Amino acid sequence: MASATSPSPGQAAGYVVAVVGATGAVGVEMVRCLEQRNFPVSQLRLLASKRSVGKRLVFRGEDIAIQETTADSFKGVQIALFSAGSGISKEFAPVAVRAGAIVIDNSSAFRMDADVPLVVPEINPQQIARNTGVIANPNCAAIISILPLWPVHRRNPIQRLTLATYQAASGAGAAAMEELQEATRAHLEGREYQHKVLPHPYAFNVFSHNTKVDPATGYNDEETKVMNEARKIFGEPALRVSATCVRVPVLRAHCVALTFECRDPITPAQVRELLTGAPGVKLMDNVEKNYFPMPKDASGQDDILVGRIRQDVSDPTGHSISLFCAGDQLLKGAALNAVQIAESWITA
Amino acid sequence: MASATSPSPGQAAGYVVAVVGATGAVGVEMVRCLEQRNFPVSQLRLLASKRSVGKRLVFRGEDIAIQETTADSFKGVQIALFSAGSGISKEFAPVAVRAGAIVIDNSSAFRMDADVPLVVPEINPQQIARNTGVIANPNCAAIISILPLWPVHRRNPIQRLTLATYQAASGAGAAAMEELQEATRAHLEGREYQHKVLPHPYAFNVFSHNTKVDPATGYNDEETKVMNEARKIFGEPALRVSATCVRVPVLRAHCVALTFECRDPITPAQVRELLTGAPGVKLMDNVEKNYFPMPKDASGQDDILVGRIRQDVSDPTGHSISLFCAGDQLLKGAALNAVQIAESWITA
Repeated sequence: MASATSPSPGQAAGYVVAVVGATGAVGVEMVRCLEQRNFPVSQLRLLASKRSVGKRLVFRGEDIAIQETTADSFKGVQIALFSAGSGISKEFAPVAVRAGAIVIDNSSAFRMDADVPLVVPEINPQQIARNTGVIANPNCAAIISILPLWPVHRRNPIQRLTLATYQAASGAGAAAMEELQEATRAHLEGREYQHKVLPHPYAFNVFSHNTKVDPATGYNDEETKVMNEARKIFGEPALRVSATCVRVPVLRAHCVALTFECRDPITPAQVRELLTGAPGVKLMDNVEKNYFPMPKDASGQDDILVGRIRQDVSDPTGHSISLFCAGDQLLKGAALNAVQIAESWITA
Repeated sequence: MASATSPSPGQAAGYVVAVVGATGAVGVEMVRCLEQRNFPVSQLRLLASKRSVGKRLVFRGEDIAIQETTADSFKGVQIALFSAGSGISKEFAPVAVRAGAIVIDNSSAFRMDADVPLVVPEINPQQIARNTGVIANPNCAAIISILPLWPVHRRNPIQRLTLATYQAASGAGAAAMEELQEATRAHLEGREYQHKVLPHPYAFNVFSHNTKVDPATGYNDEETKVMNEARKIFGEPALRVSATCVRVPVLRAHCVALTFECRDPITPAQVRELLTGAPGVKLMDNVEKNYFPMPKDASGQDDILVGRIRQDVSDPTGHSISLFCAGDQLLKGAALNAVQIAESWITA
């Protein structure tokens, strides 16, 4: 067991698992991940807002009705996966914990709380043990950016990291994915389209991430999350990080262009060697065929694809490397990582 | 006149101007720019490949037939704007120069030749005077990236520049723009689409720039152009630059996320002040409304839009700034800059 405050594991048959936000883009993937990874579930409770009541999802061939999330929803629940926004997490995660569940929360509500582990299982699984009922699932762009850097950081500590993202619609939810498609269809047909979900027209357009910009720093909330969470997950409060977060008209996989500076000199060959076979990472670095990570290939795939590994020529000291990666925002960026945390928690 | 080898200017009525590659995405915009900017044209000759013969373009209400580019095409031509690829430039630019024309070449054929000026008129117009018949128009991503940096560089020299691009289809020509739309339409209708112009599926996808990657450095040709051309245009052979060039599913405007380090400390307020009113630059930096440069707004616009100006928090010395810009690839990235070079040449 993870910690004294964690609930007891279920019988061999499995755990009573709740998914909060089950009808959302991430929630649906959580249910799929639980099934595909053969997670030990004895009972699955699908929770969402009142307006989703009446909908059903299929899990292992069984048709499960969506229930409204209420204070009574968590009785008997051992593992609660939350992905319904910060407000719902703040309201119901304490309820679930009091009911005896371990909460794995995909919102940003508790990520930076000192007593809440923020976990990417390939990086800091040992943090799971110090939970007091809630384990936070990191921001999608943070996970996809830093997972491929961890094997490098362990060997040759990264001192500075700058990155620019190419983020998909899915990070803003299923409605944003629908809006991208509807807006694009309208654009191709020469029709007007009034955007409702995202703050800017999305068809064949790119825009700075839609989260609020801090007037004091000029960074938006998404960038601040990436920077703070990278430091917390790596356990390196002094890591110097700067992020630029941008939305591109892609459905469900994020890309990131990264440059990092290590303590000691480093070569692309060393990075390739460190990443070969690294958990959660797949090298896709075919210079001859100009074949590198793309959303098209990352979508639906568990691994983060990594390529364009090269010496950063703007650092003549040989301490800096640039690379490009792509990962499924809904899987490793959200649902898969949450289910992997639950798997690690079970065996911790 | 620009130099001893330049041809004589035409009479007050204007110049005999040829556009080579007139039916291409850039060529069409060159003709439009000549008209919209009221360029002094006495006669316009529209040249293209044999398969475009029979097509016509309208210039100032006059219907002009496309002619095949041959060794005889340049008789009497005073200004020849080339945008038909490096091969055509290498073959016919010398012919045009021998016929007495000044060649303004949008291809990469001569850009790095020591005796060929590489010009962004807002940055280095004085270079025009040293031409020996050919003036090169820079790479689109280079122009859009560095134009907003010039007012900063003059005041507080930039030592290091790293950038990641979000490049539109138009840089690969009209056929690539068509392919993006066709592929996207097919994707939305659930149909297969076999890409023919670009090496990867483009619908709702992002991919590393399609130019060849140098196995020795890991940089692709587009990135190498941006890096070399930035140094040449700024006249700073020691400038440390690194670029990551990426295609996004956008039709005709490029975006760039830039971070630069100056010789002396610098603040976002200083950058904003230096860029306010700078020629060719338009600030679009509305933190409160989350309104920053977007392809949607840059398309069809002459100026490079600049926003997200902020202190790079990964450089605690206060020497580094990050910003985001967008520019029309076909206009300031190509046709407009070429016509502006011609305007500067006339008055030089």
